[in-house]
Amino acid sequence: MTKKFLCEQIQKKRSYLCVGLDTDIHKIPTHFLSYDDPVFEFNKQIIEATHSYCIAYKANSAFYESRGVQGWESLEKTLAYIPKDTLSIIDAKRGDIGNTSAQYAKIFFEKMSWDAITLSPYMGYDSIQPFLNYKNKWVILLALTSNISSQDFQTLPLLSGELLFEKVIARAQSWSTAAHMMFVVGATRVDYMQKIRAIVPNHFLLVPGIGAQGGSLEKISAVGMNQMGGLIVHATRSILYAGQGKNFLKDVIQQTKNIQESMEKCLDKKNIS
Amino acid sequence: MTKKFLCEQIQKKRSYLCVGLDTDIHKIPTHFLSYDDPVFEFNKQIIEATHSYCIAYKANSAFYESRGVQGWESLEKTLAYIPKDTLSIIDAKRGDIGNTSAQYAKIFFEKMSWDAITLSPYMGYDSIQPFLNYKNKWVILLALTSNISSQDFQTLPLLSGELLFEKVIARAQSWSTAAHMMFVVGATRVDYMQKIRAIVPNHFLLVPGIGAQGGSLEKISAVGMNQMGGLIVHATRSILYAGQGKNFLKDVIQQTKNIQESMEKCLDKKNIS
Repeated sequence: MTKKFLCEQIQKKRSYLCVGLDTDIHKIPTHFLSYDDPVFEFNKQIIEATHSYCIAYKANSAFYESRGVQGWESLEKTLAYIPKDTLSIIDAKRGDIGNTSAQYAKIFFEKMSWDAITLSPYMGYDSIQPFLNYKNKWVILLALTSNISSQDFQTLPLLSGELLFEKVIARAQSWSTAAHMMFVVGATRVDYMQKIRAIVPNHFLLVPGIGAQGGSLEKISAVGMNQMGGLIVHATRSILYAGQGKNFLKDVIQQTKNIQESMEKCLDKKNIS
Repeated sequence: MTKKFLCEQIQKKRSYLCVGLDTDIHKIPTHFLSYDDPVFEFNKQIIEATHSYCIAYKANSAFYESRGVQGWESLEKTLAYIPKDTLSIIDAKRGDIGNTSAQYAKIFFEKMSWDAITLSPYMGYDSIQPFLNYKNKWVILLALTSNISSQDFQTLPLLSGELLFEKVIARAQSWSTAAHMMFVVGATRVDYMQKIRAIVPNHFLLVPGIGAQGGSLEKISAVGMNQMGGLIVHATRSILYAGQGKNFLKDVIQQTKNIQESMEKCLDKKNIS
């Protein structure tokens, strides 16, 4: 998916929401357990219900791998069901030496055909490069994550005057462009967003941390948006488990619509139309 | 597996070799392709042939995931075949927020029962902690990897005077002990080994990078060993693909034996018996 197409979807849907499909079989309404593949059937209904209000779907591979062979099957079927006009992101946070990264790239970009993958920067360029060989795909590099312990290393001050996450973002500028690379920046990190936008004014940022983790959509949007929007904000548990019982989708749709409407207001404030 | 037992195995086998089981179905002798599960059958024969000369086996999950459902089955069967007196390491390099790391811990420590897992430190303590809840298991944290691009971030000088990888090792001291944590230090990093041993004199270090990547066993052993040995050095491609055709095991055994004999000399030099 191109950057231009993604921007058009944001303008069309008045939304920059990514729905997280980190589906936990123990948390979905119990009537799904009678299906052959409860997780896929749940995802299918979530996708149908939320597609009008979001521009991306993201699945964390751990939630599928933890169910072994059956989990991989659910993941493949879910990917096949994600509409082509939404960005499909596999949240894998991989990062390994070159020949191993090439294996991961093959899994997620060839065997399955995700549009984008999250990667960890710790091992440097040659661990990321195999993914950049796929010209129509996106690499989303962890920069400043939303968890409390992100301060253990990511915000360490370097001798050069930068913080580590700034260096990660800055160095990655020589690896690829805003057409194929994004960065993860947690919604809980409003205080650092201006610094980040000074380095990457034109890049998309993938933003976790609203909802269960306590980040504010309005605050992160106010400082993080650029003239094209430039943010993809994801919500998972607050949407997936918004409702209960057989009529769970009513609350799922309402919750997703609420987030979309809040996003529309943020886009309006920045005169993005 | 306890640290004491691991040390005893090193003394008994006069070896600190870890055989990497990153088996590529395209590189194994072609007669294996007539088996139902060629990768497992190859691994089984490799394990039988090398078990006398090594104290650990390590499988990189990417090589199995890339073959989907069948790959996971090969991985589970391989783990079940690794003898209980050798350390089983899953090289996964994961690292995610707490609830996701808990899923990964469940996959690799419960559904499968690996003794140890490699993890990336970038997201900090709360991404590692779920793995530390398993009291009889090992966490092996990436510190200074063997690839060229490790210098992109791992060797950056911090304002505090440390290099990033030193900070990773130092901070992780408050997370666990030498009884449950190891660090990855590439054999190509002889120049930094003294600094590392100054921080963690008693920890085991997992050392990639001899063989195909060009590191020297003798050099890294001379500076990296402590009084108990304290190194686990792994070799993969140089062992797995040492031989060809139906008699490939003859060369595999010879190559493994050669490495073991070199290791015995290194142990003798340090008077470890």
